[in-house]
Amino acid sequence: MFNRIELQKKVNDFISNVQIGREPFSLYDPINYTLQSGGKRVRPVLVLMACNLFTDDIEHAIKPAVGLEIFHNFTLLHDDIMDHADIRRGNPTVHKKWSENTAILSGDAMFIQAYEYFLDCQSPNFRDILKAFNQTAREVCEGQQYDMEFEERDHVTEQEYLRMIELKTSVLIAAALKIGALLGGSNKKDADLLYDFGRNIGLAFQLQDDFLDVYGETEVFGKKIGGDIVANKKTFMLIKAKELARDEDLKILNDLLNAKNMERETKVDSVKKIYNKLNIHNLVKLRIEELNQLALDSLAKVSIEENKKSELKKLAENLIHRIN
Amino acid sequence: MFNRIELQKKVNDFISNVQIGREPFSLYDPINYTLQSGGKRVRPVLVLMACNLFTDDIEHAIKPAVGLEIFHNFTLLHDDIMDHADIRRGNPTVHKKWSENTAILSGDAMFIQAYEYFLDCQSPNFRDILKAFNQTAREVCEGQQYDMEFEERDHVTEQEYLRMIELKTSVLIAAALKIGALLGGSNKKDADLLYDFGRNIGLAFQLQDDFLDVYGETEVFGKKIGGDIVANKKTFMLIKAKELARDEDLKILNDLLNAKNMERETKVDSVKKIYNKLNIHNLVKLRIEELNQLALDSLAKVSIEENKKSELKKLAENLIHRIN
Repeated sequence: MFNRIELQKKVNDFISNVQIGREPFSLYDPINYTLQSGGKRVRPVLVLMACNLFTDDIEHAIKPAVGLEIFHNFTLLHDDIMDHADIRRGNPTVHKKWSENTAILSGDAMFIQAYEYFLDCQSPNFRDILKAFNQTAREVCEGQQYDMEFEERDHVTEQEYLRMIELKTSVLIAAALKIGALLGGSNKKDADLLYDFGRNIGLAFQLQDDFLDVYGETEVFGKKIGGDIVANKKTFMLIKAKELARDEDLKILNDLLNAKNMERETKVDSVKKIYNKLNIHNLVKLRIEELNQLALDSLAKVSIEENKKSELKKLAENLIHRIN
Repeated sequence: MFNRIELQKKVNDFISNVQIGREPFSLYDPINYTLQSGGKRVRPVLVLMACNLFTDDIEHAIKPAVGLEIFHNFTLLHDDIMDHADIRRGNPTVHKKWSENTAILSGDAMFIQAYEYFLDCQSPNFRDILKAFNQTAREVCEGQQYDMEFEERDHVTEQEYLRMIELKTSVLIAAALKIGALLGGSNKKDADLLYDFGRNIGLAFQLQDDFLDVYGETEVFGKKIGGDIVANKKTFMLIKAKELARDEDLKILNDLLNAKNMERETKVDSVKKIYNKLNIHNLVKLRIEELNQLALDSLAKVSIEENKKSELKKLAENLIHRIN
């Protein structure tokens, strides 16, 4: 079996050779730019890891694995237009560097490129793999739609928020594992168990992201702390705080959310103070552990030798308890 | 065999039942709105017609046929954002009625929906069908990119223009026929001959569109005459006129192209006068007939009985010599 580092190298080697060099270059340059701009490559590594649980022959899984990474980057490209984001991975976003039209159309071409890699894959599970990919693509769009809608709403429930991050983030982690398993020739049951494992890990991964936005270290996290607080983003942490705060605390919290022209640092520190008082820190950590346990329960049921599961466990542990 | 009217009815009946009624509605409402807003349904009818050349059992081809129509509508949706078009088929465009963000994301979901219909299709040619669809999708994006680029350029050659409309318009007509043939169980050679037939018909179809923009009747054509002239669009007709005009005529033409604040009617009439003098009218008609002949040559080689080809010939005739 391959370890994570080896798989990551396979993915990176493949991607660094993906240079779409055909005309019109103006359509393909932004795709090359996006693909070469880095990222953790979590999804393609998960595809290969899941495939490797069932077979040693994983070369044929690299193309669809990279297809999934290209799809992920396509969603970021279009999301960045919708969210008016100027910077991604330290570089100007495509719609800033080129134009909105370029970002729309190159994004479309990128999605098509993702499909191209899937269509080359040779597997008896070909149709199931494509269906899993397409359903996931649809759900990711639904997640983005909810995310945008929640911004316009005053109140979002915990359940709604968890459903949104499930769609926007965790189904793609889950699908990476399911698709990898199917590529490796697994049966449907094992593929679905790995999907469940990924779904819960994906939820925990996003909750950890919310957590780091408040409690991370800027230098390690790679972006400014408190972005969600400044934007009044209805994360799990804010939803819980609004639910648990009473009397004076609730009043302060609401005032902070309604405050105009407050200095960034003041707002972040004040909201954080309330989070601390309400022990939101523990609450989110507890929830992450619950999700981690659910994930491990699913993984335990996958019908392969236990020792083969260790790389996946390590990666999950890494994603959930990461500090950046 | 079914005639065009019967096939059109099958397509329309299917589409009128496509009502995506799941949450988030805000994502799917624009898709339903777009699909129910009409259109000639040329592409799905071509899929069914080509399928019907090889088999009487065409029910299984309806879903992918509608998938192709959904894809076509998705490209219009995104193109309308890029072209800042406010009206489509007499109704406000999605980005006008909702917002740009909605149009981007619902467009993405629409493309995914198109794929969903393709993934349900049962055919031994499943992979070839998907590959033909995906390659065409990529080429349509390339065509749109060239179209946008040509707007910024001073000079476009006839060859470049023909390549652009081939990518933007005719490959999808061609793919409709190829996919239909493959769904009907044709061999690869016949499918490719039908593709060629469609490619040339598609080019002729677009040249007729250019022609109608100058020489059509507003009431019949359904939109104001002269839109391309007003926008200085580098159509086949303008490219030819610039190539053929000499001395005084060339000077007048260039002055018209550079004129600011000229009244619409004056500009349209003056350019038309030059077109008339240079016989551009005949030139485009001649080219359309050449393409028609090339198309018929390919159709003649398709290895089925001649009498089965009549519906397709009629539809092509109709598309090429249409007045609206």
